[in-house]
Amino acid sequence: MKEVIVGIDIGGTNTKFGIIDTDGHVLYQSKISSQIHEHFSDFIKALGQAIKGGIDEIGGGIKPIGIGVGAPNANNRRGTIEHAPNLIWKGIIPFVEVMQQDFDMPVIITNDANAAAMGEMIYGGAKKLKDFIVITLGTGLGSGIVCNGQLVHGHDGFAAELGHVIVNPNGRQCGCGRRGCLETYVSATGIKRTVYKMLADHLEESELRGISFHDLSTKMITESALRGDIVAKDAFEYTGQVLGSKLADTVAHTDPEAIFLFGGLSLAGDLIFDPTCKHLENNLMPIYKGKVKVLPSSLQNQSAPILGAGSLVVDYLNSQSPIKI
Amino acid sequence: MKEVIVGIDIGGTNTKFGIIDTDGHVLYQSKISSQIHEHFSDFIKALGQAIKGGIDEIGGGIKPIGIGVGAPNANNRRGTIEHAPNLIWKGIIPFVEVMQQDFDMPVIITNDANAAAMGEMIYGGAKKLKDFIVITLGTGLGSGIVCNGQLVHGHDGFAAELGHVIVNPNGRQCGCGRRGCLETYVSATGIKRTVYKMLADHLEESELRGISFHDLSTKMITESALRGDIVAKDAFEYTGQVLGSKLADTVAHTDPEAIFLFGGLSLAGDLIFDPTCKHLENNLMPIYKGKVKVLPSSLQNQSAPILGAGSLVVDYLNSQSPIKI
Repeated sequence: MKEVIVGIDIGGTNTKFGIIDTDGHVLYQSKISSQIHEHFSDFIKALGQAIKGGIDEIGGGIKPIGIGVGAPNANNRRGTIEHAPNLIWKGIIPFVEVMQQDFDMPVIITNDANAAAMGEMIYGGAKKLKDFIVITLGTGLGSGIVCNGQLVHGHDGFAAELGHVIVNPNGRQCGCGRRGCLETYVSATGIKRTVYKMLADHLEESELRGISFHDLSTKMITESALRGDIVAKDAFEYTGQVLGSKLADTVAHTDPEAIFLFGGLSLAGDLIFDPTCKHLENNLMPIYKGKVKVLPSSLQNQSAPILGAGSLVVDYLNSQSPIKI
Repeated sequence: MKEVIVGIDIGGTNTKFGIIDTDGHVLYQSKISSQIHEHFSDFIKALGQAIKGGIDEIGGGIKPIGIGVGAPNANNRRGTIEHAPNLIWKGIIPFVEVMQQDFDMPVIITNDANAAAMGEMIYGGAKKLKDFIVITLGTGLGSGIVCNGQLVHGHDGFAAELGHVIVNPNGRQCGCGRRGCLETYVSATGIKRTVYKMLADHLEESELRGISFHDLSTKMITESALRGDIVAKDAFEYTGQVLGSKLADTVAHTDPEAIFLFGGLSLAGDLIFDPTCKHLENNLMPIYKGKVKVLPSSLQNQSAPILGAGSLVVDYLNSQSPIKI
């Protein structure tokens, strides 16, 4: 029997899942809606059936040994999803407990950015690294911090909320209820806000003046910048400046070997990497200068969240092994 | 034979050392000058002789099993002291290598703040904690970060330089060559600078107007504040505000259960704890509110640096044990 892992990525719209072998090959992949089941227990029932369907479809010869889950506001310590604003189930959801009623195996849950960091360590560009950080750039900014080869979960299971370090205490309003959080500047939404601020403050002509806030996307800003649009280029420069200078503070916390950028904004390549690297380097304390790499995630594909989730199980089983290296 | 540990605390003026049992009782304590031996190898020779003298003085029945060292700019990964501005030996000092020529046992070195954090975990108020931070408030601001029960050393051995996160990029000049580092505001020197800034900006009468910058000490500012001096009180309030608001960013990194304040400024009690706690709490992201304790170190005595250094050996030997809990 070939041992396989189930990786689940719970998003606001869809829940993707996959069956992967321990080398990271995706043997089966599918999704169900995260929105049609009003009650969480019904959702879990449907998800369980879909997973079992996938196992049947692969046919015999495989044995699931664990389930890894990436979800917004997931708490690894408690096995819960807590007050996730983008999910329809409110309050505290005892995910692991409910899932284990149907599946008698380890179920490991953490937030999507932590899952991305673990995926990078098990299957991606951080395979040989013990100290690194993954920054996920989507609608918001998520992060996963690895120290001494272990994900940092923190006392209460909510470590690595780098999207919510403060750039400016009187700055932009954040969904968390405060002002000036990093993700209000550095994220798909953040760069849109920067473009709009620049269009408001300056008089430069820009092809972005014809696009509404709702319609504007990171992809459009990227394409405009590549065509030489000054506002789009400046918006990337500013975004990288904010990210780089705040990452200098993060380096002073955990002294990582590398910082990986994943998703959305990171796909803009040099447009975001150049200013980020420059301003990180300029702001680093001398003892760190020239020592921290900023790299694109090597798991930039559709299966990345599933691999990340699945990698939680690999890590968990490694840590349970009687001979720990 | 009773197993004992040697704890060494290397400072700019003196090097203190002690022989301690594994329960943290100091059996012998002494010091030698850090300044009379121009060559590092001569210093190590003198230190080794002093340690052997201490072992002889205790008499028979003890067996040293390891040496722990806290030193400025010490690098745990490489066993070195690197470019320490306050020590007379320049460049990179291969401390562990030289020490082991005389002592055939594990020699573990780290910076003094990391040693303080380890001391807090092995012998102090963090005995049952897995995720906490120690902030040492002396001439500068040092820190040690513990995650998952392990000190965070970082890739290059220089993690946890929280004295050098940036409060204001255009702020006070720092010894590290940059501007606005946390320790330029929060430290014995930082609060002096704040007092002088306030005396310059405002007209309030203050008993501190009669004291020169060189003569002014944290103890004087504390005593003035306790007597009701408005400038001294405001200086503590401002110092706590800066510390509390920056610690909120630190919590967003590692989600600690507690933050311990050690040394110098922390001895001012409520004067520093009240504003620090208030501004930390006000600046925390909602998911962390009410969950992070700010506590005085429980190792506030003269032996603390020696216990901290010695605790490195206890931790090292625990990690080497075949049955790891």
